[in-house]
Amino acid sequence: MPEPGLFHGVLARGAVAAEVDEGAWLQAMLDVEAALARAQGSPYAAEIAGGAQSELFDVGRLGADGALSANPVVPLVDALRERVGAEPAHDVHRGATSQDILDSAAMLVAQRALGPLLEDLRGAADAAAGLAERHRNTAIAGRTLLQQAVPTTFGLKAAGWMTALDEAVARLDAVRRERLAVQLGGAAGTLAALGDTGPDVLAALARELGLAEPVLPWHSDRTRIAELAGALGEACGAAGKPAGDVVLLAQDEVGEVREGGDPGRGGSSAMPHKRNPVAAVSALACARQAPGLVATLLASMVGEHERAAGAWQAEWRPLTDLLRFTGSAAAWTRDCLEHLEVDAGRMAANLEKLQRTYALDEAIPPAAALVDRGLRARRV
Amino acid sequence: MPEPGLFHGVLARGAVAAEVDEGAWLQAMLDVEAALARAQGSPYAAEIAGGAQSELFDVGRLGADGALSANPVVPLVDALRERVGAEPAHDVHRGATSQDILDSAAMLVAQRALGPLLEDLRGAADAAAGLAERHRNTAIAGRTLLQQAVPTTFGLKAAGWMTALDEAVARLDAVRRERLAVQLGGAAGTLAALGDTGPDVLAALARELGLAEPVLPWHSDRTRIAELAGALGEACGAAGKPAGDVVLLAQDEVGEVREGGDPGRGGSSAMPHKRNPVAAVSALACARQAPGLVATLLASMVGEHERAAGAWQAEWRPLTDLLRFTGSAAAWTRDCLEHLEVDAGRMAANLEKLQRTYALDEAIPPAAALVDRGLRARRV
Amino acid sequence: MPEPGLFHGVLARGAVAAEVDEGAWLQAMLDVEAALARAQGSPYAAEIAGGAQSELFDVGRLGADGALSANPVVPLVDALRERVGAEPAHDVHRGATSQDILDSAAMLVAQRALGPLLEDLRGAADAAAGLAERHRNTAIAGRTLLQQAVPTTFGLKAAGWMTALDEAVARLDAVRRERLAVQLGGAAGTLAALGDTGPDVLAALARELGLAEPVLPWHSDRTRIAELAGALGEACGAAGKPAGDVVLLAQDEVGEVREGGDPGRGGSSAMPHKRNPVAAVSALACARQAPGLVATLLASMVGEHERAAGAWQAEWRPLTDLLRFTGSAAAWTRDCLEHLEVDAGRMAANLEKLQRTYALDEAIPPAAALVDRGLRARRV
Amino acid sequence: MPEPGLFHGVLARGAVAAEVDEGAWLQAMLDVEAALARAQGSPYAAEIAGGAQSELFDVGRLGADGALSANPVVPLVDALRERVGAEPAHDVHRGATSQDILDSAAMLVAQRALGPLLEDLRGAADAAAGLAERHRNTAIAGRTLLQQAVPTTFGLKAAGWMTALDEAVARLDAVRRERLAVQLGGAAGTLAALGDTGPDVLAALARELGLAEPVLPWHSDRTRIAELAGALGEACGAAGKPAGDVVLLAQDEVGEVREGGDPGRGGSSAMPHKRNPVAAVSALACARQAPGLVATLLASMVGEHERAAGAWQAEWRPLTDLLRFTGSAAAWTRDCLEHLEVDAGRMAANLEKLQRTYALDEAIPPAAALVDRGLRARRV
Repeated sequence: MPEPGLFHGVLARGAVAAEVDEGAWLQAMLDVEAALARAQGSPYAAEIAGGAQSELFDVGRLGADGALSANPVVPLVDALRERVGAEPAHDVHRGATSQDILDSAAMLVAQRALGPLLEDLRGAADAAAGLAERHRNTAIAGRTLLQQAVPTTFGLKAAGWMTALDEAVARLDAVRRERLAVQLGGAAGTLAALGDTGPDVLAALARELGLAEPVLPWHSDRTRIAELAGALGEACGAAGKPAGDVVLLAQDEVGEVREGGDPGRGGSSAMPHKRNPVAAVSALACARQAPGLVATLLASMVGEHERAAGAWQAEWRPLTDLLRFTGSAAAWTRDCLEHLEVDAGRMAANLEKLQRTYALDEAIPPAAALVDRGLRARRV
Repeated sequence: MPEPGLFHGVLARGAVAAEVDEGAWLQAMLDVEAALARAQGSPYAAEIAGGAQSELFDVGRLGADGALSANPVVPLVDALRERVGAEPAHDVHRGATSQDILDSAAMLVAQRALGPLLEDLRGAADAAAGLAERHRNTAIAGRTLLQQAVPTTFGLKAAGWMTALDEAVARLDAVRRERLAVQLGGAAGTLAALGDTGPDVLAALARELGLAEPVLPWHSDRTRIAELAGALGEACGAAGKPAGDVVLLAQDEVGEVREGGDPGRGGSSAMPHKRNPVAAVSALACARQAPGLVATLLASMVGEHERAAGAWQAEWRPLTDLLRFTGSAAAWTRDCLEHLEVDAGRMAANLEKLQRTYALDEAIPPAAALVDRGLRARRV
Repeated sequence: MPEPGLFHGVLARGAVAAEVDEGAWLQAMLDVEAALARAQGSPYAAEIAGGAQSELFDVGRLGADGALSANPVVPLVDALRERVGAEPAHDVHRGATSQDILDSAAMLVAQRALGPLLEDLRGAADAAAGLAERHRNTAIAGRTLLQQAVPTTFGLKAAGWMTALDEAVARLDAVRRERLAVQLGGAAGTLAALGDTGPDVLAALARELGLAEPVLPWHSDRTRIAELAGALGEACGAAGKPAGDVVLLAQDEVGEVREGGDPGRGGSSAMPHKRNPVAAVSALACARQAPGLVATLLASMVGEHERAAGAWQAEWRPLTDLLRFTGSAAAWTRDCLEHLEVDAGRMAANLEKLQRTYALDEAIPPAAALVDRGLRARRV
Repeated sequence: MPEPGLFHGVLARGAVAAEVDEGAWLQAMLDVEAALARAQGSPYAAEIAGGAQSELFDVGRLGADGALSANPVVPLVDALRERVGAEPAHDVHRGATSQDILDSAAMLVAQRALGPLLEDLRGAADAAAGLAERHRNTAIAGRTLLQQAVPTTFGLKAAGWMTALDEAVARLDAVRRERLAVQLGGAAGTLAALGDTGPDVLAALARELGLAEPVLPWHSDRTRIAELAGALGEACGAAGKPAGDVVLLAQDEVGEVREGGDPGRGGSSAMPHKRNPVAAVSALACARQAPGLVATLLASMVGEHERAAGAWQAEWRPLTDLLRFTGSAAAWTRDCLEHLEVDAGRMAANLEKLQRTYALDEAIPPAAALVDRGLRARRV
């Protein structure tokens, strides 16, 4: 369960929020410390793992004490060492530096968040596919620059949403499988503190955490963060596009769709005639925050020497927020599309003007054929 | 006391964080509701104010319930009405819409945050002025493109920091005094639900809350948010500039300044020779997150009709974060400059190469004169 | 006449483009050099001014040669010296550094661009005011989250556009009057190369160029650029808001406005029924590019020491583009609003559903009163 | 040869600029029109291709006329039809809409630009690899937060640059091979105007242009643009990182590297002692402009229905600029690294303090082993 937030109902929908909250970050750091002890074959690995439980630590205290070293790992290591006792303490954090723990934890947090995130994104794509299939022949006005242009089908519109969501899923999943790697390098990224065992410990740590093993420590190479950010930004765009279209189609004067979903949602006691497209609006609110956060993360790629003086520390919040907002956008868009009520009659009625110019029996079959093509390609 | 956060020691320094946290937002919304009852001369105004205490409400519950209406005001009004009882409940939220409460609360939150924020920003400027005065004649290499160019004084360098900080203060203070206005308009911004009393209630509400009275409801005119965002972005830049210079001057190979501050800060048990410029690094980490957040807020200016479907809801987090990061950057930079240890000897030693080309007795007096000019202008 | 561009019809509308093109930048730099000679009372000031004509120089050559010094001023000064002859050459660029010329030229470019820009922005505000006045009582559905909420008037909607545009004008004009200052400091900003005359030359240069005189050289204090950027971003938002509403109101299914303007604009030979809101779409296209450019300029505030190694050089394009896009957005929005065709009948027809719930004779007068209030405040 | 530009020497280095200038865009649009005629087996395909030569058209005129339709394709098609004569004119632009031509042209422009861009990026990576190999054992201070931490080798530092550049190359090349696809859909993306032949024409057009064939028209699915933007942003970060480190290492007080390159570059006649790291500074200036442009492109993903009213038109400049700046950053970084002069003696001297604490014979071998590991992985 994520921490409470006044805007969380709107901006932290779905299961991702709990995977990126303070407790999740803390547990991820502790998991890295525990895995590091195991990876080095420490005889105290079990004791260390036993002590590496986030509920045993005070997030606020660790955070506050992090002010002394510009990161929370230093007080965390102190607290973990104190908890496990004198002998095991020697094996805590051995050969590692703060950035190793935080970067590896960031990758763990991302990996754990991407599970539910991809599930909701796939769910949204599936819902779009369902709409595409059911409405492959449902005529609707194609609109360019928000003016009616020529007829198309609602199915093809939904197939466009589906394709973009599928592509965002493919990209994000590739980043998850290939680019989320453990970080271990020690104070300057040389693995020197581990002597000859460095590469073996690196490999073992990767196995322990279920993350990729990098060729080199990546403390000063932020391409992994950049690719994750880019893929999340793309996913927000893909989730925002159908949400934007739904808001437009749900206008009173258009009236071609309306949102279903939770009873009571979108209603207004003061204006009983109103039914707000809450899911789509919320998805858009989340998606709109992505580009600025991606920009911050890209700008953080250029850091100084072996650890950046500001750029690295500027990654933690935008990465967390970007995961949360993308997860929330995906969950809302999925909800929106899964419960979308389609008014084919109204679509037909709105087409009237175009039908004076365009014969639907020429316009619709090619659109329907494209829907089939899209659905076929998806099944492969 | 703000909510705990693992990165708060670094990224939520100073007194601003507590003014923008969940409880502060909730109290601000409740303050608007209470003031609205008073502004309408409700006989139940005292009861409403008595019930409008944030600690009586469950932030998490309100936030979660906000998912039904895409904002937390609807459940808040329900909860407040329930708390004050049947008769007073009629006077709760009368004539207002959710956006009125949230926009006015945002202005209150900003106003309350800008108090300590401006204090720290002014403190940073004062510290820079102190350095300028004390080191008006302290020769240092002027560096362009990070290469030594010609001699200048450390005082003039500090005067440049001071001027930028002073200008950021002036701008932010002007926004605070002139642009933080109450919002009240009702469902579509017409004040119609208040009948003839609309303008009077608007004026009274502004008085009650100590905010400016706008000519028109500004629900669809986001220039106030844009100016606040721009001024905060400017303040982050002004706070980041000296921090960046301090990090560079504190390099081992340059060694012209080092950070003082809290004992124990910046040290490393593993590397006892190291003294990290923690305050400057943290200031930079905060400041670097501003441009992306400002961009999100500027992009939110273009919203649909009488209330935006996504753009408005996308303002809440970036505004909160921007206030917090700017406050944190200001607090860190103030701390950094107030405790800066200046090594004039090292500055002189590093100048050696330039002195072969430039006579210091020609180079320094004009710089010192500029410092005096800057300090004089400041005193006016 | 600005340089040709394939997308300039859409993205470089109005008179600003010609004020920020390559020739305009070159002339501005030359104007600074000529004014600098006059400000120092050079006996060759007239010769230097005579040679400082952009058409005498090869932009492409200067630009290419700028690669050697990372800015085009060095080759420009060489070329200008060569042109004016040996004796006057000594008085060219005396006491200045490349950044002095470029920063002062940037301010000149901005000043010259802000003339037509403000004229178009004011024109847009006036057009909105005209619509507000003419339609103070024209009922229209107030729409929140793109759903009909309660009645309002088209006049109040237009008054909201007007207020935002007026506020953007006020802010941008304040920046123009107060914050566009000459830069002069020499190699490290000390004015040392000018000896005792530095401050007098600074003052004279400001007078010559019609720019403000700064207290200190601002080579390392980028608050002026930040404020200009913020004000331009605000103006883009204020210009984009009515454009966005027009696009929505012009939808076939809404049909409450349509764009007038140039005959032939917005038509489609392939789709003769179509009338695209070209001005509004183009205004939006321009306005959407502002937030990212503002972010780049804000991020450039934190530069190294006396001249930034990358951040300063990264200002030139975004500043130019931001001026051009803002000018273009203002021109398009003005055009859009000046020629807007309003269909009050359709507005009334679309209100039908709301009229079942809300009595127009209660809803409209408060809205009309607010319009009057807004127009009155404007006249002061 | 690209169009002249006052800042092009700094900001438009390398061969990419000419691939994205006005003429290149125009030729790409014409190439799409010519290929479209061939793809449909038009008997006039050769005549159309003969007329589709950019030098036969007036860029400025087309751009200006584009103001009538909010894009330059409409006047371009008119002009091309006029040029080829009445009969062939019927086969010009058959079945296509403006966005088809512009989107396909954007992909062509990107494909052509990515050739030299990837070459320079690979050249930069190769240069970094050369430095890594030559300096695998060259001791240097590892610096975190710009403070000396523990020893590392310059080779490992360069290997980190190499890895990031290689990863950026891999990502950008994957986008080039897999994601640059032809766009063809007609007025609303249904291919209806081509009747049954739509899919075949789509496939043939893709073959003609050497672009991928999409499953569906992607006019309303901007994931391709988003991925291209993300990959370019990543490349800028990867190119900027070594540039930033070079600027820091080249400081007078550090003096561990200096830039070679063109004779005369980086010198200053006024300050003969100065040698500016012009290539690195210019690379940074280019790279810093990427995050804001990526943000603009990501924000453009959410467009309305079958063609966005503003978001689509807002892609053209940022995409062009992002390609140009990334190409320029890559070219500068390659230049910088290929001519980097390394002062191993100074590196050793600067290490003196660390050597009191750390034995180099323990610190260096693990770093050198990592370099070998990095180079080995690269050769596979």
